[in-house]
Formats: sequence, C-alpha cells, structure tokens
Amino acid sequence: MTIKDIARECGVGISTVSRVLNNRPDVSEEVRKKVLAAVEANGYIPNNSARDLVRSRSDAIGVLVRGTGNLFFSDMLKTISAEIDRYGYDMVLRFLRTDDDEVKAGAILEREKKLRGLLFLGGRFNYTPAEMSLIGVPYVCCSYTNSFGTLRESDFSSVSIDDFKTAYEAVSFLISAGHRRIAAFFDACNDHSISELRYDGYCAALEENGISVDPALVVQTGGFEMEDGYNGMKKLIESGAEFTAAFVVSDMMAIAAMKALRDCGKRVPEDCSVIAIDGLKLSEFTSPTLTAMVQPGAEIAQESVRILMDMVENGSEGVHLRPQAYLRTGGSVCRR
Amino acid sequence: MTIKDIARECGVGISTVSRVLNNRPDVSEEVRKKVLAAVEANGYIPNNSARDLVRSRSDAIGVLVRGTGNLFFSDMLKTISAEIDRYGYDMVLRFLRTDDDEVKAGAILEREKKLRGLLFLGGRFNYTPAEMSLIGVPYVCCSYTNSFGTLRESDFSSVSIDDFKTAYEAVSFLISAGHRRIAAFFDACNDHSISELRYDGYCAALEENGISVDPALVVQTGGFEMEDGYNGMKKLIESGAEFTAAFVVSDMMAIAAMKALRDCGKRVPEDCSVIAIDGLKLSEFTSPTLTAMVQPGAEIAQESVRILMDMVENGSEGVHLRPQAYLRTGGSVCRR
Repeated sequence: MTIKDIARECGVGISTVSRVLNNRPDVSEEVRKKVLAAVEANGYIPNNSARDLVRSRSDAIGVLVRGTGNLFFSDMLKTISAEIDRYGYDMVLRFLRTDDDEVKAGAILEREKKLRGLLFLGGRFNYTPAEMSLIGVPYVCCSYTNSFGTLRESDFSSVSIDDFKTAYEAVSFLISAGHRRIAAFFDACNDHSISELRYDGYCAALEENGISVDPALVVQTGGFEMEDGYNGMKKLIESGAEFTAAFVVSDMMAIAAMKALRDCGKRVPEDCSVIAIDGLKLSEFTSPTLTAMVQPGAEIAQESVRILMDMVENGSEGVHLRPQAYLRTGGSVCRR
Repeated sequence: MTIKDIARECGVGISTVSRVLNNRPDVSEEVRKKVLAAVEANGYIPNNSARDLVRSRSDAIGVLVRGTGNLFFSDMLKTISAEIDRYGYDMVLRFLRTDDDEVKAGAILEREKKLRGLLFLGGRFNYTPAEMSLIGVPYVCCSYTNSFGTLRESDFSSVSIDDFKTAYEAVSFLISAGHRRIAAFFDACNDHSISELRYDGYCAALEENGISVDPALVVQTGGFEMEDGYNGMKKLIESGAEFTAAFVVSDMMAIAAMKALRDCGKRVPEDCSVIAIDGLKLSEFTSPTLTAMVQPGAEIAQESVRILMDMVENGSEGVHLRPQAYLRTGGSVCRR
C-alpha cells in the first residue's frame, strides 16, 4: 500500500493525499475526510512510524547536504545554520551519501521530524511535480535550480548562480586571453544537472568565437572528487591532446588538475592556464592562485533561508534568485 | 540574580544548583526543595526562558564546533552527524565564532534544547570543575583534552591524538632527514591549548637531539587561519632567519606557508622542507604533496559519539582515548 494506491482509491492526486497527511489547509474538508478514511481502512502509515500521524509540527527546518566533499558547501552550511537559528528555528541536518536521493531523504525526514520546511544544499536539476508531491512543506533549492525539470516556478524556490552564463564568462575570459585549444572537465556532459549547464556555457563561448568544440578536449570525469579532477587531467595529457588552457567545473577539481599538470612536468600557467567556478578562499592559497568565477556563497545561503522562512511563515509563493558570480583573477591564467 | 546567588543563599555549591535545575538524581530531596524554593522566590530563570523549566528532556545531542575554518572539523562533522543519527538521537548543531566560549554556549544550548549530552568539536584545554558545573549533562571533548585544566578524569570524556607526542614525532622526522635549523609555526606558544602542547613536543625533539631552541625560528601567528600561516612564513623569511625546514601546527596553515615560500622565490622542499599535523585528503593534492602526521579523524569522531552515548544511556564514567597519529610521507620533505 503506497501513497499512490490511496490517491487512486480516493480519485484524487498524490499531492492531495500528501497535503492531507501533512495537515495542510488547502484541501476541502470532504476530500480530507475521504483520504483519512482510506488511510485508516488500509492501515497505510507513511514512513512506517505511527507516531508521525499524531505528533504536531515542530519548529524545525531540515537541511540536506549533497556533495559533501565540496568545501563550498561546508562554508555555506555555517551561514545556513546561523541564519536558521537567528529566525528561531531548529536545524535538522543530514549529510547525504552520493547514492542517496535528496527528495526521498527529505520526504522521510519531513515526516519523522515534522519539519516546517526543507533546504536542499545541492541536488538534482530535474524534479517533476509527481515526485515533489512527496514533500508536503515549502522547500528551497540552494545553489541549484530546476533547469531540466517540470516544476511550476511558483511551487518552489531556488537561489543559484546562472551556471550557463558563469561558465560562458569563464571560457570567454580564456578566449580573450588568446586561448583557442581549451580543455574542459565535467562530471558528465549530459547529467541533466550542473555539469550539463556549464558544458553548454563552454560550448556557447567557443562557438560564438568561431571555435568548434573538439570532443577530444572534453573530459567527463564521472564524479566531483579531487581524484576525479586529477585522473581526468592525467588521462587527457596522456592522450596526447594539445591544449593551452583548461576550464574546470569546480575549484577542488581544479586544484587537483593543477597537481596532475605539474606531476606531468607542465607549468601552470605557462604550459596550461586554468580557470574554475567556485572561488574558494582555499584556492587563493594555491600556487599559483587559482583564477576563478566566485560564487557569492554567503549571499546564496542567506537568501535561501530568508526565502524559505517567508514561505513557511507567510505562505509566500516560490522565488527564484540568480546572484551574479564574478571573476577573481589569480595567477593560473596567462596570455597566449 | 545568578546561579551563584542561588548557591550562596542555599549554602550549597554551584554544581548542586545546576544538578537540581537539570533534574539530575544525585541530589538529596531536602536540598532539591531548598534550591527550587530559592529559585522560585527569586524569580531566577536560567537562560531567560521560562519554558525551559517545564519542558522535559529531548532526545537530542548538542554539537558545538570551534575553529570552523579547519577542513579537518568539516570532515569529522559528517561522521559525527551520521553516528548520532545511527544511535537514534537528533543533533543540535552550533558553529561558534572565534570569540564565543564553547562552555557558555554549551550550557545555554543544553537548557534551551533540553539536551541529553554535548559533544565539543574543538575547545579550550583548561576547564575547571567550577565552570564545567554549568553543564548538567555528559560531554565529550572531541579532538582535544584537558591537559591544562583541573577536571577529574572520571567527570568527562575525551578523544584526541597525543599532541605533544605527535609534534615530537613530526620534528624528529625532520631531524632524521638531516635538518637542524627547523622553524615552527603556532597560534601561540603559551596558549594553554593545542599550540602549547605541540610547541613543547617541538622543543623536546630538538633538545633530545642536542639542538637548542632558537626563539628566532619560532613564529607565533596569532591565529589558525590560512592568512596566519601565510603571513607568519613571510615575516620569518623577511627577518632573514636561516632555516631548512618548517613544522606547522596544521595542514591548512602549512598549505598557506608553502605558498608564502614560493611567493618569496623559495622551492619546497629543496630550499625548505615542510611538515604539518592533520593529514587532510586535500593536502595530498598540493604540489608537492604535503608530508604530514595524519589524525585518524573518522575514528576520533566515531569513538567520541560512542563514548558519549555510553555516558548518556548507561551513566558510564569518563573515558579518555588517544588514537595514534601516523606519518604520511609526501613530497614536501627532503634530506639535507
């Protein structure tokens, strides 16, 4: 017996059942009674916990963190924690493993802890209304968007840089410095997620400048860990491909890619310029300092909490903010 | 009206008042009544929140994180979060600012959230029984100890490497590689904390090998941030002091110190070898790879939660574990 079965039996949508189970006001009394009767008759218990149905809602916000190897998230988490506290709410924190799905984890956490709202720190870009109906409280996509999904803009919030545009600007900067053979490193180019958007921005910048995309220079690393950046760069060098610059999807992977370059006897930036997106404080202390598009992490974190609170307390509709990333010039890019 | 005034009025110790306010069993019924009467007569409310006195204890553990710039703590926090969850408890997390005192913050959090136990991730090494009487639940010092304090071993728990011994081993390794002019970088040498213990280990290794400590080579950086490591190394080089190796109190500061060396035209390790304590994954991707004493962070985190749970659920006495740090050889140390 699943939430789908209850919905079918009552002749309503899954999201309606979810709203009833979460005591939301936007359901007619008639439908509410029908759904609750079906729930009782079938012994359906969401999330296997009977007490969930009787406990009243807490004053807690759930925060689900994906991609925990990324220092960018560690820094934002501090701001998110402080902001949630400042609004007088508790934070229930979960670090997800790579193979956990944040929507399922969020839905379970919401019921277990009777949360008032959810903040996803990193996640998929392709949510559908059907799957998000599992979530019965307001939520914010923090540092990502729903570019490949089908959600209605009013049904959720997001705060994120424009990934396409930021990648476009990073690669345009390399081109303006005289580079034309520009390698690129992504998780995967068709992940319907951050890598795909940034890959599209890379391609657009090249094409606009009359440079055709050379698949031999596009490395799909299969992950976002430092090892992935290191191994990806090493493989590209060993392939014999010629390039004078590299655009890397994140700072941490770029730091590792710079090590691979040096381990292969290549100098940064003389033999290969490197630019990345994130702009961590850490990468101001690499040698050379990493040139990067800086994500305004504190602003993204603060705005995400502010918007979530407005949805939780005032029932506001979804809001979508695109703070601007900016170029931090370091020593890892030189003119050609 | 403070807890001290209540204690004085009742002719009991502060810790007794604290035990009464926290509903602990180890107080006689007579004393309990006397204290509660005084509390009521004086309108004394701990932490300004009337509901604290009536709310029953939660199933939550407080985690207070100090030194948030340190990636070592970010990594351990993931393990701590997962372990607390596995034991079926909620985690209430607070990131402290540098000027916050973790004991005061912990005592407030304990009352506000009716916590069952506290885990301090980093903190001072000089607690006294008087100040810790503010804390009415079991607590564990995670990654540090009470070396400069006066707590009874049975009254608290700690899980930490042996800072003195680990520093001693790091510096002994440099000496065994032929170095005798070894610089050292600490927050402060008499901070009654981690730096003082590691400074003592540095001195002991030198002296045992017939090398006298040269104050000109000991840099007190005044902080643990990357900037502090960078500026400290730069200052030492500009002072004209001669040295062939450096022992740095943490990986993050060592990464920054290596950058300062390079920015001043010095090669690592040819002109200056570098060793640090932490052994982050990140510093396997610096160029050269940082040679470091590795703290077993996951073990420290896991054991801290296990011990805390044993104290919370079974009333166990304090336990003190000293997991062994081990040498990870990289490329930042060469023979002289």
